[in-house]
Amino acid sequence: MKLLNVDTLEEAVGKLLRAAETLPLHTQMIRTEEALGRILAGDAVSAEDIPGFRRSTVDGYAVVAQDTQGAAETLPVFLKLTEEVSAGQVPGRCLQSGRCAYVPTGGMLPEGADAMVMIEYCEPFGAGEIAVGQPVSPGRDVVPVGEDIRAGTVFLKRGTEIRAQEIGALLAAGIGKIPVFAPFQVTILSTGDELVEPGVTPGPGQMRDINTGVLKTLARQYGCDVIHTGLIKDEKEQFLRTVKAAMGGSDLVLLSGGSSKGNKDFTAEVIEQLARPGVFTQGLALKPGKPTILGYDEPSRTILAGLPGHPAAAMLVFVLLFGRIFKQLRGEKPPFCIRAKMECNVPGAPGRETCQLVRLLPAEGGYLARPVFGKSGLITTLTEADGYIMIPLNREGLCTGESVDVWLM
Amino acid sequence: MKLLNVDTLEEAVGKLLRAAETLPLHTQMIRTEEALGRILAGDAVSAEDIPGFRRSTVDGYAVVAQDTQGAAETLPVFLKLTEEVSAGQVPGRCLQSGRCAYVPTGGMLPEGADAMVMIEYCEPFGAGEIAVGQPVSPGRDVVPVGEDIRAGTVFLKRGTEIRAQEIGALLAAGIGKIPVFAPFQVTILSTGDELVEPGVTPGPGQMRDINTGVLKTLARQYGCDVIHTGLIKDEKEQFLRTVKAAMGGSDLVLLSGGSSKGNKDFTAEVIEQLARPGVFTQGLALKPGKPTILGYDEPSRTILAGLPGHPAAAMLVFVLLFGRIFKQLRGEKPPFCIRAKMECNVPGAPGRETCQLVRLLPAEGGYLARPVFGKSGLITTLTEADGYIMIPLNREGLCTGESVDVWLM
Repeated sequence: MKLLNVDTLEEAVGKLLRAAETLPLHTQMIRTEEALGRILAGDAVSAEDIPGFRRSTVDGYAVVAQDTQGAAETLPVFLKLTEEVSAGQVPGRCLQSGRCAYVPTGGMLPEGADAMVMIEYCEPFGAGEIAVGQPVSPGRDVVPVGEDIRAGTVFLKRGTEIRAQEIGALLAAGIGKIPVFAPFQVTILSTGDELVEPGVTPGPGQMRDINTGVLKTLARQYGCDVIHTGLIKDEKEQFLRTVKAAMGGSDLVLLSGGSSKGNKDFTAEVIEQLARPGVFTQGLALKPGKPTILGYDEPSRTILAGLPGHPAAAMLVFVLLFGRIFKQLRGEKPPFCIRAKMECNVPGAPGRETCQLVRLLPAEGGYLARPVFGKSGLITTLTEADGYIMIPLNREGLCTGESVDVWLM
Repeated sequence: MKLLNVDTLEEAVGKLLRAAETLPLHTQMIRTEEALGRILAGDAVSAEDIPGFRRSTVDGYAVVAQDTQGAAETLPVFLKLTEEVSAGQVPGRCLQSGRCAYVPTGGMLPEGADAMVMIEYCEPFGAGEIAVGQPVSPGRDVVPVGEDIRAGTVFLKRGTEIRAQEIGALLAAGIGKIPVFAPFQVTILSTGDELVEPGVTPGPGQMRDINTGVLKTLARQYGCDVIHTGLIKDEKEQFLRTVKAAMGGSDLVLLSGGSSKGNKDFTAEVIEQLARPGVFTQGLALKPGKPTILGYDEPSRTILAGLPGHPAAAMLVFVLLFGRIFKQLRGEKPPFCIRAKMECNVPGAPGRETCQLVRLLPAEGGYLARPVFGKSGLITTLTEADGYIMIPLNREGLCTGESVDVWLM
């Protein structure tokens, strides 16, 4: 069963991606040390080999490996100590067979040496000799030149999310600034005659607008700049003026409706009136999220979206549509999900895909997913949830014990 | 087998927690909208019921449920329309049996009404009557007063991490500022004669210091302020002066050593000399992470830690020790881990717990964990890894196909 004029989530994502591909994907240069959470906009290539010298990974003696053949604790090999190399220093001489040099962790091996013997297996023996009690093969405890990062090769790909370790690798290669994707510019407008600003005490029948705050936070988490927010009344002229003004500088204008019927019509009408080619999705076969409206204005390169008024629905639709396409446009890896078993049966919605909020409970061998139920519009269903699962269009529901993928939220 | 003078991870965490419990756990008030990722330092209680009125979750007609008994599409019940309530408005009159009122989604039900019938099941019939084609029970599609958040009750507990949805719930309750835990104050000092600042081109035998950048990023991720960083040479007097100065304003002083043997001794000596009672852990039964040194200075309330010089080891030890105790001190929920199956055998280390880096690969029914091997000190082992697994002290290793918990990193 397919609802008339309504897109599945996949269809809507496909249409959105086609529209979003025309959005300008700007990049900007930022300091590597400040790049946590940003997405690399170009491959990172090192100009140098890292390490730039043969580095010891242990405190010990640099040797010619062959000299240690047959060495044992009870029958050590005696090698003449030629020098003690300090950290950060270049060894003074080339190492010949029958000799050894002390090298600390991180220190440089002398030429001629091809392995390290850990200090634990060696003992000074007087007369400048070291008794080596362990045989080693060539390369043992030595990092060759370029083993960590090879000059001229890509060591981090475009689309990589910068974590602490990527900052480390970039700094190791001496790359102090990197290109990252510039944030998308987003305007968020809440509509609904019943809404008041969060700082205002609502009168009877009124509610505080929370969608703006929730969507602003989410948009930032997904790498957007929120350049303007506003609360507008269900009055068409004001609506038109505000949306039109927002289209100038925004890549995405999010309208989260009071969800009243009149309001829903407003959103579609306004997008149709202002945007060319206009609305391309009028309703999603998704629970929650049915009253979602998507459109595009080619001249100003703006995506326009009417999200449901219920906070849980608005949040989930944002994540499922925009969270996904923003990541895809920047070439990011998909996030990891957590495999869990359903704690109880949960019904799907006829003819619609269902996005079901769940809590994760530690259990033998993994997690149990407990559905968080609640009337639509309750924000506390979201605060109780750790994530969500998707119940496909063609499934009546999920059964107790069934394995599900939980997406953290 | 237990190494002499060496603590297990659990023992070290226990000792650290006892020391850290004396650290001042300051709180600060911040704007709710700016609180993403912060940890709530007190329970959140609403002064109001949310919603503050009986709210409809659908567009439709408010009715006395009993009136709709027996209604069917083919045999509707006829109810007199008394008014159309607008969003944000108080209904004009009390609803009596035999009557109905139009109420939009988010609108207020008139007194007397106890259920909603969705507009899809109703039809205007002329003469101000509505034909209702569906029976409903009391409460249907109505959010009672206080169902989302009840006045006077805790709706978010101390220790909760603030996500977009928590911001929404707080704004719904009109809570514009919240108490969160103030960051711990951290000083990070890298030591090693072979190290140069990241902006400098290393000479032969030298390397860029990357531990400072990696640890600074991690510390911030775990809710710390990094108040001072510095690169110091393996020179005891400078070392002593710098650490002593840092102890004044820091909760935690991290020393990440060049790992050379001399250096390791320095760290323990310096902590012993400056701190009372001083060093409490000298070495961890952990791979990597053996050369970790932990101490505490009671007068200045400073934890002092000497981390391994290898970036991967320093990062993992920070996460396993400080990531864990910071979360525990603030009462946070532990993070979720990802269950995966080992792609191949992986050995443990005799007498030590092993922290093994892994990549996660999507597979039938979940993920495969592929170990990331590499000589110690390679930063690219960390950039290739999605997370890590722990191999217990008493296990020789893990087998292909064995289930493991992967902690994302």
